[in-house]
Amino acid sequence: MTDKVSPLAPLGFPELPDIDGVRLATAEAGVRYRGRTDVLMVLLQEGTAAAGVLTRSKCPSAPVDWCRKLLAKGRARALVVNSGNANAFTGRKGAVAAALTARATAKVVGCRQQAVYLASTGVIGEPLEADRIEAVLQETAAAARPGGWLEAARAIMTTDTYPKGATRTAPLGGVPVAINGIAKGAGMIAPDMATMLAFIFTDAPIAAEALGAALRAGLGESFNAITVDSDTSTSDTLIAFATGAAAGRGAPAITRAGDRRLGPFRAALKEVMFDLAQQVVRDGEGASKLIAICVRGAVSVASARRIAFSIANSPLVKTAISGEDANWGRVVMAVGKAGEPADRDRLAISFGPHRVAFRGERDPAYDEASLSAYMKNREIEITVDLGLGRGADKVWTCDLTHDYLTINGSYRT
Amino acid sequence: MTDKVSPLAPLGFPELPDIDGVRLATAEAGVRYRGRTDVLMVLLQEGTAAAGVLTRSKCPSAPVDWCRKLLAKGRARALVVNSGNANAFTGRKGAVAAALTARATAKVVGCRQQAVYLASTGVIGEPLEADRIEAVLQETAAAARPGGWLEAARAIMTTDTYPKGATRTAPLGGVPVAINGIAKGAGMIAPDMATMLAFIFTDAPIAAEALGAALRAGLGESFNAITVDSDTSTSDTLIAFATGAAAGRGAPAITRAGDRRLGPFRAALKEVMFDLAQQVVRDGEGASKLIAICVRGAVSVASARRIAFSIANSPLVKTAISGEDANWGRVVMAVGKAGEPADRDRLAISFGPHRVAFRGERDPAYDEASLSAYMKNREIEITVDLGLGRGADKVWTCDLTHDYLTINGSYRT
Repeated sequence: MTDKVSPLAPLGFPELPDIDGVRLATAEAGVRYRGRTDVLMVLLQEGTAAAGVLTRSKCPSAPVDWCRKLLAKGRARALVVNSGNANAFTGRKGAVAAALTARATAKVVGCRQQAVYLASTGVIGEPLEADRIEAVLQETAAAARPGGWLEAARAIMTTDTYPKGATRTAPLGGVPVAINGIAKGAGMIAPDMATMLAFIFTDAPIAAEALGAALRAGLGESFNAITVDSDTSTSDTLIAFATGAAAGRGAPAITRAGDRRLGPFRAALKEVMFDLAQQVVRDGEGASKLIAICVRGAVSVASARRIAFSIANSPLVKTAISGEDANWGRVVMAVGKAGEPADRDRLAISFGPHRVAFRGERDPAYDEASLSAYMKNREIEITVDLGLGRGADKVWTCDLTHDYLTINGSYRT
Repeated sequence: MTDKVSPLAPLGFPELPDIDGVRLATAEAGVRYRGRTDVLMVLLQEGTAAAGVLTRSKCPSAPVDWCRKLLAKGRARALVVNSGNANAFTGRKGAVAAALTARATAKVVGCRQQAVYLASTGVIGEPLEADRIEAVLQETAAAARPGGWLEAARAIMTTDTYPKGATRTAPLGGVPVAINGIAKGAGMIAPDMATMLAFIFTDAPIAAEALGAALRAGLGESFNAITVDSDTSTSDTLIAFATGAAAGRGAPAITRAGDRRLGPFRAALKEVMFDLAQQVVRDGEGASKLIAICVRGAVSVASARRIAFSIANSPLVKTAISGEDANWGRVVMAVGKAGEPADRDRLAISFGPHRVAFRGERDPAYDEASLSAYMKNREIEITVDLGLGRGADKVWTCDLTHDYLTINGSYRT
């Protein structure tokens, strides 16, 4: 692993306000890392609703299995996350370890274990020593306090080079409610959904079903619109917790997803998700450039998305951009291989403001010098116009660099 | 580009016999490279049949468009290949350049231009200066002779680190016929079909339709079973030419694909294709290790293949193997993301003779030391048993190394 922070990192971790009904604490359990925190514990007030989206992998981790069961109920009192070991592909031992952590947490918190959400991130396939986590739970719970979002975001990092957090407020029935989110993710990032853990907390009184609908509505343009390496994780977990504490300040209880009063909240939630997803792709392992891929003129939005990801996941496109080479021929290649309707002779491609290809050939105004200058930017935008229809979409990725290989060539050691 | 030859290269270029009715010549046209040959010309005797398979890219090169038209007729008198410029995404200019080369060749050879096959490989999007090729055609045709297979294979190389050739003989109605093949390909290699140019020549008297059927029958286990970087080219071209000269030695003319006398020929052709495809993947850009992925126990062969390619194309799997890290958790990840039926708790994974995972968790006999020793091999075999059905398949890839990035970060410059 490298110690340097991604050059695409935001300027700093934002100020996250306290959320009524949420208390946080972190601990050093020594699961794998030494000299840093690796356990996050979040205590949630009684009545907290939970909704989430989990990886579609056919080989999900034990905590993912655990959360899938819990999400059917939609109630939460605690969240325990560890970094360093994903507790994935750990068989019966993994399920036992998850249950042990949940049970021990429930005892400490004084709640049912079905209200304890779990997430683990790190190496796959190595048994998780849950007793190390259990050993710190009591002390950690005792230390829980309303603030500490930066420490929380730090404790769940693996190959991340910076902690990720975002916050927004929105009026709910005229009462301001807060939405905080933290996330981790840097590699094994692909839809659906981006490989990561992300946890969102709000004091809004929103029932689990309505919360889940708002969450899913925001996915397409956030966590499902980014890719680092096309590799989908066994551990992807996005969970939102709504404590409902704002009801005490007069916020109306929302039970239906279609409730019109939910509009501003949904928009703010989407912004938090977008912000976190952008932070994840900006921390793509080894990334030196952020790449936005805009596809328009496709026969449909779905087709535009598939073409966009064909470009975003192409090792040859990503390697060229890493080398600051405007190799737009590889964009042509990636459009061609997507298997979606495309007509070579209607295709136009731009790098930033520079149109490089038009109607199936190099643009007459093509200028290598100005293009080369553009490629030195930290943020590159590639626009593809298929000239066929009105389908448009946008996704984000990062370049493929030597650092990606260095980070991933010996991750376990 | 690096100068070193792939460590996975075969010991040397094989001895290829002359093929009756085939004459070869190469030239330095200076299309892009300096101080090396970049044009291959093959003259074929009258009556030569041609069959082929072309890229499925929606943005095919001009020579691919050209060959697609010609293959409908199935007659050939000449083949002209250039390296350095792919004549892809070159619009009307590209089509004009292709037609110019065909017309000029036809004039030199004394045949119809519809009997002149073309292929170009190299940079995409830059206009091909066909007059440079035209300028050498006369002299090149005059120099054509039966031998020179090694020089032919060399003239079509781009990022290839060694020339690729293979040969077999087979009895056809009791008469031995020869099959020679040459290929180029190193990057932008993915099914369907592996990004490359491959040309096969035989003196067998086989009609175009029967030849095409034999060619397609061999694709699945050869060119369609390899991937270097999951990127499909705009230029993939596989064409087989049958001069029919062996008829003079008594070989029977074969017109129907189902003719039983074709059996040994089909088997030998398959071997030539397999041999060439293996040489391509062994020359994968930057490759330091050859990786075979065997999937069995899948619900179908198609499902096994999709899972195999999900593993073979995973940057995280390929990077780990480059680092000699037996990170089998990433194989679990790649199985999980394939979207195919899989049951985590029935999954078994082996690296060579070492079973690392069994029934959804790390194998009880897992031994990191012996596994680490195995990972130092040049050739790595990963076997995945899904434990669901009888579907099995095998594909090949190579590792993802720093050299891949170095080669592709500045390909155009």
